[in-house]
Amino acid sequence: MSIDITREFLDNLEEEILAGKKENYQEFINDSHPADIAEIVDKIDEEAAEILFRSLENELGAEVLMEIDEDLRAKFLEGYNGQEIASELIENLDSDDAADLINELPSDQRREVLDNIEDEQQALDIARLLIYPEGTAGSLMGTELIKVYDTWRVLQCVKEMRKQAEEIERVHAIYVVDASNKLLGTLSLKKLLTTSTKTPISEVYSSKVQYVEINTEAEEVANYMQKYDLVVVPVVDPIGHLVGRITIDDVVDFIRDEAKEDYNLASGLTDEVEEDDSILSITRARLPWLLIGLFGGLLAASVIGRYETDIEIIPQMAFFIPLIAAMGGNVGVQSSAIIVQGLANQSLSGGTITRLLKELGVATVNASILAATVIGSSLFLGYSMALALTVAVALFAVIIVAALIGTFVPLILNNYKVDPALATGPFITTLNDIIGLFLYFQIGRLILA
Amino acid sequence: MSIDITREFLDNLEEEILAGKKENYQEFINDSHPADIAEIVDKIDEEAAEILFRSLENELGAEVLMEIDEDLRAKFLEGYNGQEIASELIENLDSDDAADLINELPSDQRREVLDNIEDEQQALDIARLLIYPEGTAGSLMGTELIKVYDTWRVLQCVKEMRKQAEEIERVHAIYVVDASNKLLGTLSLKKLLTTSTKTPISEVYSSKVQYVEINTEAEEVANYMQKYDLVVVPVVDPIGHLVGRITIDDVVDFIRDEAKEDYNLASGLTDEVEEDDSILSITRARLPWLLIGLFGGLLAASVIGRYETDIEIIPQMAFFIPLIAAMGGNVGVQSSAIIVQGLANQSLSGGTITRLLKELGVATVNASILAATVIGSSLFLGYSMALALTVAVALFAVIIVAALIGTFVPLILNNYKVDPALATGPFITTLNDIIGLFLYFQIGRLILA
Repeated sequence: MSIDITREFLDNLEEEILAGKKENYQEFINDSHPADIAEIVDKIDEEAAEILFRSLENELGAEVLMEIDEDLRAKFLEGYNGQEIASELIENLDSDDAADLINELPSDQRREVLDNIEDEQQALDIARLLIYPEGTAGSLMGTELIKVYDTWRVLQCVKEMRKQAEEIERVHAIYVVDASNKLLGTLSLKKLLTTSTKTPISEVYSSKVQYVEINTEAEEVANYMQKYDLVVVPVVDPIGHLVGRITIDDVVDFIRDEAKEDYNLASGLTDEVEEDDSILSITRARLPWLLIGLFGGLLAASVIGRYETDIEIIPQMAFFIPLIAAMGGNVGVQSSAIIVQGLANQSLSGGTITRLLKELGVATVNASILAATVIGSSLFLGYSMALALTVAVALFAVIIVAALIGTFVPLILNNYKVDPALATGPFITTLNDIIGLFLYFQIGRLILA
Repeated sequence: MSIDITREFLDNLEEEILAGKKENYQEFINDSHPADIAEIVDKIDEEAAEILFRSLENELGAEVLMEIDEDLRAKFLEGYNGQEIASELIENLDSDDAADLINELPSDQRREVLDNIEDEQQALDIARLLIYPEGTAGSLMGTELIKVYDTWRVLQCVKEMRKQAEEIERVHAIYVVDASNKLLGTLSLKKLLTTSTKTPISEVYSSKVQYVEINTEAEEVANYMQKYDLVVVPVVDPIGHLVGRITIDDVVDFIRDEAKEDYNLASGLTDEVEEDDSILSITRARLPWLLIGLFGGLLAASVIGRYETDIEIIPQMAFFIPLIAAMGGNVGVQSSAIIVQGLANQSLSGGTITRLLKELGVATVNASILAATVIGSSLFLGYSMALALTVAVALFAVIIVAALIGTFVPLILNNYKVDPALATGPFITTLNDIIGLFLYFQIGRLILA
């Protein structure tokens, strides 16, 4: 299936590379898939990795470079000048990868690289791709595609495909355009194989073509390709000219990254952080959230501080602080998680009012059951009826409020173009903690006083 | 790009369907993509949805059926007997969809449906697919593929492809097998287009073929296809016979479902729950987690209860309960989130000891900064030095312990084949709450007594 990259294997290889025994591994490496070589490069010692990388032929090297860790790539690129990047790397990459690579370069080097690309059409294609803002269809697309004109016959089409296919690794689809490059439809391989070579293309192509516009958001492209089970989708400019195509593998990467980002935000981690990053960068990803939690905790302390005399009189009030705080946090996260997912899948149905009423319905059912449970348990555990009642009423109130906050905050964030997934993290938990405690002590004062 | 399914449009359509004005929408519907029709069926009133669904031709109906909500599909299927399911639906579906559909039927109906499939080869293919356990390559694969024999020449191959292509919607790859059906390699479209028709296949196919075994876990298939940017991957049995293929669209669905499941678990939601589910089913997905939180809270209450006299003497001890509880929870979730993701991507490097030491390193750095911050802030806010010190020491201890628990729990769950993502939910937060409070009051007793 694929090579098994064990630690032992890596240690051996590392030793051979550092000992300069190129003949022992060269054949194996040249036979390996770029993705496997990239995995090896990522996992061995940096010095050995650089030696291994430099020993690769240009084409293989370029492909490996695009698969390795971003930090390592930046490091390897320091050894190249603009002219080398253009001739050794860019010329061996698909336009979308080439654009990504140039985007990662320091800005003063970008121009130098573009100027040094020999194939003018390629330079133009890449320069265009660099314009599209991140997170749009334009930034995901490549320009390599097979297109034929509606005025051709099947035979001419097959000839042209032979020519174009030389340049293009995989043929996913054949696009039919008119003389002005406007996308008219697609020609299926099936039709191409089963039609006489003299048939005009205009008679056999399918005009039911699915496409996305260049400014479409990446998220929407992902949903679109998933909805229609597309492996590749053509990209058109606002007036319908065919400008590129997006393949599903780039979208899969995008989907995974997005899911990871949401998960990280919900878990209180900033940025892309991997288990094998350095202690410092992991700390950097975590500390900001913990500081929010800390200041939230200090705020909670001063809220409780306002009720110091109540606690002096009934110290048992303090026992239920964690319960109230935890439940507010949990309900808030649950409510916001559903909204966040609905926003991401664009599957939120109905208006804000309907959604709110429903959330209130769920919250009321949960709150009633939990309040009843807490009264029963508290009495059973020997707390006073007044205290049990206080906790139950406060719990009910906290759940309702937390559900409302959990529903509103992601919607508001989304309105202001902030990633709504932020709302499921420590932020909302802390907010609900504080409000919940205030409600709890206020209700306690009413019932217990 | 695609039709815009607005509420107004749906209301209009619903009215026309219920009024029996078939002529007003039939043409539009027959022209629409199955995925669009499915979206409409999901979103309109159930009565109208059923009328609309029944009006579809068999092939379109079968495709729409596979795209709609599972509950609605089950409801529609009640109106079919086994014979109808076989002849009207199964015969119009790809083998993988057909197997999925049969798997959703009540067990007594499955046999009846299989017996009624006319094409014996199709029945056999589907019956085989039903055997593979969920979550394996076998359960994701379909049997529709184009294969040619290594003994053929290119011309024969093109002829055969024409024949097979009639049956197969999209040609993703051409597989080359030997007389015993053993997978030898792939033939690229490029080669097929650029080689003379007399060339033997054995001379032009590529033996560098990437495949997965039928028992490979779905998660691993997803990682594999993503790593190698594959749009389709052939599936072989343990001795290398070609048995099917998995297309990326099925894997994309799988990746999304997995990401959603992890996210739900982290947010305290059981099961697949959608924003548009009923109040009852949303409650069912949330209540269990809230009950865990509730009983955790009661447990925390009895932990604090053991320190009632301490609180009576120094009520300010109570002020920092939320801070300690929240920080333990946050750190625990952060630590486990990284482990959960590492497990999912199979990217955990190094041994358990290394991982633990690193986690301890991160925790120590964070804990030191946060403890210093909390001493400074507490003094600034006018709390006593002894209390500030208590909070700081407890915070330090809680962070270290929470990091260890956050690291260990998902690893242990994973060892026992329980989804490690469970560890990032309310479960770990509650556990850390309780341990944290115990540490806090114990340390308080030492410092403040």
